[in-house]
Amino acid sequence: MEDKLHSDGNILFFNKDYISEFIYGGIDGAITTFAVVAGAAGANLSISVVIILGFANLIADGFSMSVGNYFSTKAEQDTYEKNKAVEYWEIENMREKEIEEIREIYQKKGFEGELLNRVVEVIISNKDVWVDTMMKEELEMSRDERTPFKTAGMTFLSFVTIGLIPLLAYLFAILNILEPSNLFLVSCILTGIALAIVGSFKSIVTNKNKLVGIMETLFLGGIAAFLAYYVGAVLEKIFT
Amino acid sequence: MEDKLHSDGNILFFNKDYISEFIYGGIDGAITTFAVVAGAAGANLSISVVIILGFANLIADGFSMSVGNYFSTKAEQDTYEKNKAVEYWEIENMREKEIEEIREIYQKKGFEGELLNRVVEVIISNKDVWVDTMMKEELEMSRDERTPFKTAGMTFLSFVTIGLIPLLAYLFAILNILEPSNLFLVSCILTGIALAIVGSFKSIVTNKNKLVGIMETLFLGGIAAFLAYYVGAVLEKIFT
Repeated sequence: MEDKLHSDGNILFFNKDYISEFIYGGIDGAITTFAVVAGAAGANLSISVVIILGFANLIADGFSMSVGNYFSTKAEQDTYEKNKAVEYWEIENMREKEIEEIREIYQKKGFEGELLNRVVEVIISNKDVWVDTMMKEELEMSRDERTPFKTAGMTFLSFVTIGLIPLLAYLFAILNILEPSNLFLVSCILTGIALAIVGSFKSIVTNKNKLVGIMETLFLGGIAAFLAYYVGAVLEKIFT
Repeated sequence: MEDKLHSDGNILFFNKDYISEFIYGGIDGAITTFAVVAGAAGANLSISVVIILGFANLIADGFSMSVGNYFSTKAEQDTYEKNKAVEYWEIENMREKEIEEIREIYQKKGFEGELLNRVVEVIISNKDVWVDTMMKEELEMSRDERTPFKTAGMTFLSFVTIGLIPLLAYLFAILNILEPSNLFLVSCILTGIALAIVGSFKSIVTNKNKLVGIMETLFLGGIAAFLAYYVGAVLEKIFT
């Protein structure tokens, strides 16, 4: 076990810092593509139309999710910066209260008496160290150093790559690699494989049992896919 | 300016801890619903079919996004726990190296000489404090205390609530509140309003300029909506 075991390492081609985006985008991509394929299959649309709808969905939905991710990551960082600005304001304008907070933080760490006084003195002698301590210890906030542009890009990449898998059956069929029978069944299996890939990566990175990781992703992902498939049919029956 | 200005407060009915989920789900919800409405309008489908497709999409896509969020939040927390376990292992098995790291951390804070020695002694006298220091200072990681179930729930709620807005024109029309003409135009405006609501909340929480927040959300959200609308049409022209 070395430091590279920590989250700053790479696994295969894959930067672990973006595992959260990979999982989020991948699961959503696989399920929504499956929903499109299922809907198209239910309506007996031709293979080429399924592929068109599938790709249109991949690009549009992947992009809209990435825009959501971009603003979400940015808002978290802005919230961090806002809190930091509040802390700088507080150590200027509520100095005594903030000194007391530093004292309490280091008391909890086991410091006392004269040593505690001297530690507090050093911390508050540098405003950046003081604020940094408040951010980490009082607010328990860490700055996300990743750029929103990169987290959004990883979301898109993952959405499109994993989301493409349920479509492969139809792609292979139109290229005459696969017989155009039972395509929907093959696509169901491919969706399962896509979810299993995400679940398995998830387990590698988080060091959890791989089988459990795959099973829980398949289970919840399966419910979502089922819902996506049937909710349209049910609503249609009720309303028409 | 008081401590309630920090991110643990509430704003209106709205818990700030979930601003990230609100933005992510809301933007994706508004854009994908708009894409459904736009597609349906382009195909001259009846108002009731637009509503059916819209609701089906809201529930299915909202659920699939929530499943993605659930696993993504959980994976981040598991990654934190894994790193923490590695740190506990390291202070047992690479004790000297880890002591040196604590020394460097406190040196950077401005401690030196005898005081530095005594600070290091106190920190390493308690394994929990020691590991906690490594997590915050070396790895700059904070534990996300929110349950994955709640972040997924907020994502769903936000997706459905904000995503419903572009559909309102068709709902009002079927309830005879609105004339069934220009529904698509009204829906475009409503999508803009939905994105503006998200952008404006974003600005309130992050303390940024409100107009800039609304404009940037409208701009990128508008591109995504435009893409969602046209990508199907273009692909269809190429492939058929």
